[in-house]
Amino acid sequence: MDATARPPLSPTPRSTPTRLKERARADRAALDAVLDAGFVCHLGVVLDGSPLVLPTVYGHDGAFLYLHGSTGAGNLRAARDAEVSVAVTHVDGVVYARSAMHFSANYRSAVIRGRAVEVTDHAARLDALRRIVEHTAPGSWDRVRPPSRKEMAATLVLAVDLTEASVKVRTGDPRDDADDIAAGGVWAGVLPMRQVFDTPVPSADLAAGVPVPPSVLGRGAVAVG
Amino acid sequence: MDATARPPLSPTPRSTPTRLKERARADRAALDAVLDAGFVCHLGVVLDGSPLVLPTVYGHDGAFLYLHGSTGAGNLRAARDAEVSVAVTHVDGVVYARSAMHFSANYRSAVIRGRAVEVTDHAARLDALRRIVEHTAPGSWDRVRPPSRKEMAATLVLAVDLTEASVKVRTGDPRDDADDIAAGGVWAGVLPMRQVFDTPVPSADLAAGVPVPPSVLGRGAVAVG
Repeated sequence: MDATARPPLSPTPRSTPTRLKERARADRAALDAVLDAGFVCHLGVVLDGSPLVLPTVYGHDGAFLYLHGSTGAGNLRAARDAEVSVAVTHVDGVVYARSAMHFSANYRSAVIRGRAVEVTDHAARLDALRRIVEHTAPGSWDRVRPPSRKEMAATLVLAVDLTEASVKVRTGDPRDDADDIAAGGVWAGVLPMRQVFDTPVPSADLAAGVPVPPSVLGRGAVAVG
Repeated sequence: MDATARPPLSPTPRSTPTRLKERARADRAALDAVLDAGFVCHLGVVLDGSPLVLPTVYGHDGAFLYLHGSTGAGNLRAARDAEVSVAVTHVDGVVYARSAMHFSANYRSAVIRGRAVEVTDHAARLDALRRIVEHTAPGSWDRVRPPSRKEMAATLVLAVDLTEASVKVRTGDPRDDADDIAAGGVWAGVLPMRQVFDTPVPSADLAAGVPVPPSVLGRGAVAVG
């Protein structure tokens, strides 16, 4: 699907924010940006009549978000061909206000709702797994052994349509009451937070002389540590 | 409740892991550690028959996890006196394997299932809000204006019992197949990740001369940046 031709987000009443509308973003580019920057998502399913939230890695291609797991994982099986919700959240800072109830967080989040459809076509499954690996560890898929027939048979791959998504972004200062600002004396502001990579640690069973790939080194280089 | 007297975790079949048991932790101290170190949680509710996952800040006291929001927030109202699930996840590293299907993440996660009960007693509500603010921004509650009667009336406070929780921790190297290890040549290892605080940014409407509190400065000091 051509990204420029994709429909706008949030076409249903249930994905249209009813509160804090100023934090909502309605374009595909905002969704892609949140999904690109994320590492794990939180998958919500209904299992035995009750909600269950699970962290898991993911991949996406702009139209669908992909999840995978063992065919033996009951939790993932609960998502197969069922309604699910997937959230990806980045915390960008702690918002310190002058009053307790105005403390907040700066964040970027995407909340998706939709059916998790099992991907059954071999090529499509392989592509979804490639996207998951490349999202988790960019530059790795072509560097490592591909999935065997046995591994593929033991893997469940699910696709969630990204059409029904809501993206929220909060940035900047606390929104304190005028009286509290006028009173003065209390520090207010933002303590920025971010995720960083540190120095790669070779596996204990790695033979001597195998260099760290540039794709791994490069990730660390864009952050501190 | 005395932490030493609390029951062990996972007393029900649905919170007992059936797979990857070596990643499970069954003690309260492990749960407390994950909740202490977290910043946002992901709350799963069932809304109009479908799951919905939402990021939100939280607090906890060892026995209950506390959530709050506007009484006008339909999503939080969906959690009131209903079954919910709450997940707190820390990603500690990207696990680079020698084969695509062994890529993984090092993480610590807690997944809680239970009823979200509305907290109605005034003192208990205030204590829950204090725990949420102190979890989000330690050292802040006594420094800022407390909630007004009007703010309290507009706030919904929920408590989720922490008894039914499962804690999982993955650490260390990839678990590669013996054949792939023997083949050699492919780098494998862990790229550590962590969350850091940067330099605090004062609010644009902050008067000159209000110092950054030690509780804010101290948070940055324990990390880089």
